[in-house]
Amino acid sequence: MEPMIWRVDVTDRTVSLEPVPGGWERLGGRGLIARVLLDEVPASCDPLGPNNKLIWAPGLLVGHKVSSCDRISVGGKSPLTGGVKESNAGGSTGLKLARLGVKALIVEGEPQGDGWWLVHLSADGGRFEPADDLAGLGVYEAARRLLERFGSDVGIILIGPGGEMGLGSAGIQNLDKDREPSRINARGGLGAVMGGKRLKAIIIDDRGGGTPSLAAPDLFKAARKLYTERLLDHPQTKVYAEYGTAAMTLMCDGFGGLPTRNFSSGHFEGAERISGEAMRDLLTARGGVSNTTHACMAGCVIRCSNCFGDEKGEKVVSPVEYETIGLVGSNLGIDSLDAIARLNWELNDLGLDTIEVGAALGVAAEAGLMAFGDVDRAMALLDEIRCGTVLGRLLGHGALATGRVLGVRRVPVVKGQALSAYDPRAIKGTGVTYATSPQGADHTAGLTIRAKVDHLDPQGQAELSRKAQINMAGYDTLGICLFGGFGFAKAPGAICDLLRGRYGWEVGDDVLQELGKETIRLERAFNRAAGFGPADDRLPEWMTHEPLPPHEAVFDVPEEDLDAVFDW
Amino acid sequence: MEPMIWRVDVTDRTVSLEPVPGGWERLGGRGLIARVLLDEVPASCDPLGPNNKLIWAPGLLVGHKVSSCDRISVGGKSPLTGGVKESNAGGSTGLKLARLGVKALIVEGEPQGDGWWLVHLSADGGRFEPADDLAGLGVYEAARRLLERFGSDVGIILIGPGGEMGLGSAGIQNLDKDREPSRINARGGLGAVMGGKRLKAIIIDDRGGGTPSLAAPDLFKAARKLYTERLLDHPQTKVYAEYGTAAMTLMCDGFGGLPTRNFSSGHFEGAERISGEAMRDLLTARGGVSNTTHACMAGCVIRCSNCFGDEKGEKVVSPVEYETIGLVGSNLGIDSLDAIARLNWELNDLGLDTIEVGAALGVAAEAGLMAFGDVDRAMALLDEIRCGTVLGRLLGHGALATGRVLGVRRVPVVKGQALSAYDPRAIKGTGVTYATSPQGADHTAGLTIRAKVDHLDPQGQAELSRKAQINMAGYDTLGICLFGGFGFAKAPGAICDLLRGRYGWEVGDDVLQELGKETIRLERAFNRAAGFGPADDRLPEWMTHEPLPPHEAVFDVPEEDLDAVFDW
Repeated sequence: MEPMIWRVDVTDRTVSLEPVPGGWERLGGRGLIARVLLDEVPASCDPLGPNNKLIWAPGLLVGHKVSSCDRISVGGKSPLTGGVKESNAGGSTGLKLARLGVKALIVEGEPQGDGWWLVHLSADGGRFEPADDLAGLGVYEAARRLLERFGSDVGIILIGPGGEMGLGSAGIQNLDKDREPSRINARGGLGAVMGGKRLKAIIIDDRGGGTPSLAAPDLFKAARKLYTERLLDHPQTKVYAEYGTAAMTLMCDGFGGLPTRNFSSGHFEGAERISGEAMRDLLTARGGVSNTTHACMAGCVIRCSNCFGDEKGEKVVSPVEYETIGLVGSNLGIDSLDAIARLNWELNDLGLDTIEVGAALGVAAEAGLMAFGDVDRAMALLDEIRCGTVLGRLLGHGALATGRVLGVRRVPVVKGQALSAYDPRAIKGTGVTYATSPQGADHTAGLTIRAKVDHLDPQGQAELSRKAQINMAGYDTLGICLFGGFGFAKAPGAICDLLRGRYGWEVGDDVLQELGKETIRLERAFNRAAGFGPADDRLPEWMTHEPLPPHEAVFDVPEEDLDAVFDW
Repeated sequence: MEPMIWRVDVTDRTVSLEPVPGGWERLGGRGLIARVLLDEVPASCDPLGPNNKLIWAPGLLVGHKVSSCDRISVGGKSPLTGGVKESNAGGSTGLKLARLGVKALIVEGEPQGDGWWLVHLSADGGRFEPADDLAGLGVYEAARRLLERFGSDVGIILIGPGGEMGLGSAGIQNLDKDREPSRINARGGLGAVMGGKRLKAIIIDDRGGGTPSLAAPDLFKAARKLYTERLLDHPQTKVYAEYGTAAMTLMCDGFGGLPTRNFSSGHFEGAERISGEAMRDLLTARGGVSNTTHACMAGCVIRCSNCFGDEKGEKVVSPVEYETIGLVGSNLGIDSLDAIARLNWELNDLGLDTIEVGAALGVAAEAGLMAFGDVDRAMALLDEIRCGTVLGRLLGHGALATGRVLGVRRVPVVKGQALSAYDPRAIKGTGVTYATSPQGADHTAGLTIRAKVDHLDPQGQAELSRKAQINMAGYDTLGICLFGGFGFAKAPGAICDLLRGRYGWEVGDDVLQELGKETIRLERAFNRAAGFGPADDRLPEWMTHEPLPPHEAVFDVPEEDLDAVFDW
């Protein structure tokens, strides 16, 4: 299928295809989203208004089941941050869109009336269908009905009640390769943008599509082989297969950076009980569906995902990730993996970002609305969200809104978005990323915890973050999972050869960094037009003077370093 | 008394006096506040954190009971807008501070412990006293107790429960000349800053103070005489004495700019019933304390204030102002002056800005939390605020927070602060002021409704707003009430002679404009450092495309005009 731009206009409910404009061809994923935003969306627009657009773009390498290289990016102006937003996820969406030749899918316009709709995409084009029967449903039941209606081979993009309600923590769910609707484009409230367009779901029927063509198949295949071998050889690949991202729990706690009780400590006395090691032992012992090894995308050799089963071996949720363990576990003083898994299911079903809501609940706990460690109360607060009460809506709008309204000053956000599960006072390079990323606080924009440095030392952290941010922006533009980097780090030429093999482009050895820099440059241009400046590239002020146990560290990377992160 | 800087440190609960720094001498009021903020407050600080300061500064001409020239400015970094904030009020505070020689009163530091305090200022200096007995009290009862404790001649600055709760709509109340605690520094949440410093009240005992000295008494007195005569001659002075600011109701409705049902119309069918004319007739007929003529400051010859009595002639509230009529009346679909007066008392007693909360209630009504026109429900929602429920706290944080959490897109704010009672689509020059003022939406920063222009025509409005903003920033720096302008417009040299007479300064004929420009320049510098840019100088996007009945007007002043407002 020839790559095209697919436009979904919710005003008159039409889907049209058009050629890819010249300036967009060599971008994909996160970089293309920034380009489309700059070209088509007024930076000062209301994120939930008629002038915002919601853009899906598979990364440049998506479509060939290269391990960890089929991620889907979705973006728009964020209702949470007010700036540029790209959020990527695994699952089958990227692959299926690429097979239909979708270079970008752009949802635009202003819905007429109060009805809910779905959009069906196939090789025959796109069409709208009523979806009022799905309104209010959680994503699990909605996905079940959609699979029944459209067949079990389609891809599904959908929102939960959170997106329908327009909540700032609402994400967009995708089916994984096993048809579980829990691969979420979580961050920045993009589910609210989809809800504002009155779209409950997008169905992708790729039966008439095909694998994107290759300009130089042999080159592509050789590069793929080399990369896959290196990836399989990497020790971290084995760690992630065994423990999943939850391996990070004890590592981060060991650095004194595990968010605990609303970021008031970096050490959690219950860390071992919610560690990757504990989860592996638990799931191994339980059997049934319980599995510590599970891939979210077809072809992935890392298989960092998992399936969490209960005592009877029946599925609770899939997957349980480290960020959820950190924000919904230690950050709420909860030391039970079973409790975390149940809360995780609820949040998934509501279609909400576990990081943002976990942070909001931490703030709410500090305000006295729940006791730290009180799982039942946490569950009751999630039920407030589901019921759409004022309190529920407040929590669903995230940590900043919650802190402001409840009068809490210890609120862990940058650019209105909650910090993920690495306290930046203990992992200062990641703190630089939180502060300066155009995305708001986001570890996936440039995590530094694996670097062999003293993470408590403010010196050199800006440089470390800069490199990580450039690389990650490059990976996000290519559609490569963070963990694919384990392979590419050992096969540095493979990215170039994959691009040359697929597109026939002349690319330099530093194409990853060039794509990353271009992406960040575009994102910062959009943010500047939206009103962001150096004052926004800061951690919360209280983190600069409130010491974090156990190291009693404050965030003391100089502001000049923060302001120079993007001077390359 | 020699003018001094009085510093109140809430960390160790001390009050100290120091000489006026060189760069501060020729500023007062609003201009001095901007200067202090730039010199002493990190622009990126948490407005409710230890690094923000709360600054009182009488205007340069304050202290001599010149009619309408004794206003008090208070400012800091605003918790509502995140930018510079100055809010001024009448009453006795300005005069009494000037009599003690207070050039500026700067409250700073971080309170230790949970107690509430008051600060007592007198010619002997300042001291802290416990004020836990006043915690939670409304301003009327708190003021009554304070007058009992400190004698009836003191000035009182105090906050209500709203400020104690840290709400974004919390203002700071001052006694008027009749000891009524209802002259409010309303806008921008400065009451929350005072609450964050754990100060319930400041007592000003000026018995040992005196009238500020004059460098050239004859010149001062002659200028004062000329100005007062011109002011008394001005036809608007008579209008304001008779109708108060409520005269604006029918004028604004006539222009199609009276905010009605959450800014969905500029015409209210009940406008006549809540007009200045109706109020005059009502109060005249009722007798008792009811009075349409009442001065908020000693020496004022305009006497635009009023005392609203009930059917028995017993006091309900004093005063009822136009902005309250617009935001709590027509904007909520309420056409009863008695109802507005009762809501006004509640808001005063809570220490809240009637504009901000009126706008928030309008947004809440649109979200379905009350029916427009339902006075009992409006009163019940104010009771939610008093009780500190989550809903109450939300409403108390103002229109932006309310709209965001409840999912309403028609939210009338600029820089997070609610629009006052002139719809900018019908009064476009004031729309330019709302959009571009460093203060956020605020009619007192540059009202244009009296200009003899077509207010619906976008052309020339930026120029009109520029002049009004410069003049108002000048008046606010001098301590002159907006309405004092009626006199100074007819006696243009009087301001210069008053300044020469009081200080012996050489000042040019355009000193008002020079002070105004300097003030705005300082404020914009602070806002830039706090992260504000051109994207923040915009009206809400929906006002550019949602037509306002009855003229079906949108706000269409070109963005280039907005960006050029301060190119002088």
